[in-house]
Amino acid sequence: MSITAPAGFVAAGGSAGIKAGGVPDVAVVATADGRPVPGAGVFTSNLAAAAPVQLSRSHLQATAGQVAGVVLTSGNANAATGHPGLEAATHLCTLTALGIGARPEQVLICQTGLIGIPFPIIEVGPNIRRIVGTRAGGPESAAAAARAIMTTDTVPKEALVRAEGFTVGAMAKGAAMLAPNMATMLALCTTDAAVDAVTLQAALRLAVNASFNVMTVDGATSTNDTVLVLASGLGATPSSAALADALTEACTSLAGQMVADAEGATKVSHIRVVGAASDGAAHQAARKVADSMLVQCSLNGEDPYWGRVVSELGSAGVDFAMDKVSVAYGDVVVCAGGVAAAHDASALAAHLAGRHIEIVCDLGLGSGTAAVLGTDLGYGYIDENRTTS
Amino acid sequence: MSITAPAGFVAAGGSAGIKAGGVPDVAVVATADGRPVPGAGVFTSNLAAAAPVQLSRSHLQATAGQVAGVVLTSGNANAATGHPGLEAATHLCTLTALGIGARPEQVLICQTGLIGIPFPIIEVGPNIRRIVGTRAGGPESAAAAARAIMTTDTVPKEALVRAEGFTVGAMAKGAAMLAPNMATMLALCTTDAAVDAVTLQAALRLAVNASFNVMTVDGATSTNDTVLVLASGLGATPSSAALADALTEACTSLAGQMVADAEGATKVSHIRVVGAASDGAAHQAARKVADSMLVQCSLNGEDPYWGRVVSELGSAGVDFAMDKVSVAYGDVVVCAGGVAAAHDASALAAHLAGRHIEIVCDLGLGSGTAAVLGTDLGYGYIDENRTTS
Repeated sequence: MSITAPAGFVAAGGSAGIKAGGVPDVAVVATADGRPVPGAGVFTSNLAAAAPVQLSRSHLQATAGQVAGVVLTSGNANAATGHPGLEAATHLCTLTALGIGARPEQVLICQTGLIGIPFPIIEVGPNIRRIVGTRAGGPESAAAAARAIMTTDTVPKEALVRAEGFTVGAMAKGAAMLAPNMATMLALCTTDAAVDAVTLQAALRLAVNASFNVMTVDGATSTNDTVLVLASGLGATPSSAALADALTEACTSLAGQMVADAEGATKVSHIRVVGAASDGAAHQAARKVADSMLVQCSLNGEDPYWGRVVSELGSAGVDFAMDKVSVAYGDVVVCAGGVAAAHDASALAAHLAGRHIEIVCDLGLGSGTAAVLGTDLGYGYIDENRTTS
Repeated sequence: MSITAPAGFVAAGGSAGIKAGGVPDVAVVATADGRPVPGAGVFTSNLAAAAPVQLSRSHLQATAGQVAGVVLTSGNANAATGHPGLEAATHLCTLTALGIGARPEQVLICQTGLIGIPFPIIEVGPNIRRIVGTRAGGPESAAAAARAIMTTDTVPKEALVRAEGFTVGAMAKGAAMLAPNMATMLALCTTDAAVDAVTLQAALRLAVNASFNVMTVDGATSTNDTVLVLASGLGATPSSAALADALTEACTSLAGQMVADAEGATKVSHIRVVGAASDGAAHQAARKVADSMLVQCSLNGEDPYWGRVVSELGSAGVDFAMDKVSVAYGDVVVCAGGVAAAHDASALAAHLAGRHIEIVCDLGLGSGTAAVLGTDLGYGYIDENRTTS
């Protein structure tokens, strides 16, 4: 599984001094020959968007989606860093471009880490060329790149999808602040599919909506979220649907890995809402349940307190009729017609004891369905987030 | 301080067997002579509204706001209990009405506790008349009533406001699930002001918007939230503004007590947004910050990580310009013009070490202001909520 599996890409990962102690903190992914290929990106909706987000957006626009490489750094978000932050990000793109033989605006940039700390470009800059110089094909380079973008992740996250005539490789980081609309997560996909930038952008948008935007940890939308894709064109030309499907499969795999590795999480929740007035209403209700701190606490305690689930459904802002709602944990229906239902308590306890907990909510109103991926809330999340030092 | 301080009211509190071990679980507040007086109510917006909410709404409507008493129970929310739940609530009103010599629809009802558990009306019913029979004036009866509505509250909550020619007394319960739009909280006010039901309803709505709707713990809106007021008419006739002010003062006191006693909280946060495009935008932004699990974790750790505050402001859905934003903890400005500001670290640490933490966010765009009351997020909240048993 690797970002270098699709034909035409090389990668590198190394330590440039952003993090202390020589921990890997810079990754580079580029076309093997340094020439630009079609690229696309989906970015955070946060209006406090970090310098790298602003710069990547502007580079994609300036080149109409022609990308020769991506530089990714971890340990400092380069967010809330003002004009010096934008200059630092520009410098990182320029140094990477020089290394791979491209123009600066053909390089995109992703950064992740703490917000509001000036980016140490003086210290980091000189090391970029060295790291870019080690770029190579093969799984080891891909693994080094995936490791270099980790922050509080406990494991690197990679995905590989082999489709009819083309391949998608992918890597990501993500830990807390995962939410629909992609919070503190970076993902980069490569493919050898032969497609133009416009088709690629549309397929990526579909893939992101179906994967990263249906997971949540704490409802936060970060300053740095970015998902990028580069297409080398060395493989077959897929249909739009086949391309979107392959990208969705890769992104869904990464999203699942992120939720499983979310900060302090002991459970992965699969919140499914059916019978809603529309798919949109189902998604809104599912997200309300997944984001509920009270529901998340119950999952942590393996407590089947469905009253909290019903309360969240009733305040989700969607059509709701109390006497039509039912709730099940896995296959065990605990609420039907809006009241408690007799059930097998041991089957229920067994389901709740697992790492994956499914909550199925039937609103009994229509045919709208949606599913959202979430986590529990326990001590670990607090331990991870109460101090940054 | 007491619900019986305004002229014309009596109260009682006792144990009716909803909670185990003889813990007080039923309160009654009524007019001294059992005759109806103007009353008003504000109820949860949750579409999964509990039986007592449905019934109180319908009683207020049927009598055009004429109320002789209120029965309040704790230990079982009587929510998600279907038609039997509505029958149980009706029975509680009827028993209370018999005790005080009023008609059932002149009695309102508030209930709080676990959702989805059939209300034990067979066991509880016979004890209601006895408790109603002990109703009396004076602070002891008021205190007994305030104690009887506690759930996970650690202290009873009462307020007393003496205004020009009239008095407002109040009591409340609330612990977790506090949020704008009043989650899992009950509050009852009495006043001897001479006002009609329509004026009273308008004043209560203003008071609730200015108090309970600007606090948050976990963003949840419960199935049972209710704020009621009864006006005996034995005092002066205040202006609408004076009445609203006095009710607001009482409700604000109760809201402060609720946040201070929120489940597991170690900090009270005062999130103030200024310089927003409008007051509404300021409120939306302040609530986004107050509800942020990441910000709440930082408060728990006394960590001045303002990057999270800026990130929440940028994703609050309101006008935002990164280069205009500033953030201060108390008087200590840590971010100005969207970037880190030099500051006195010891003054900052001293402010964060206190129980009350103020975060002032200036969006630098307009004259809109708002303040929201919140809490931190620590182990205590999880301990309280991971299991219901």
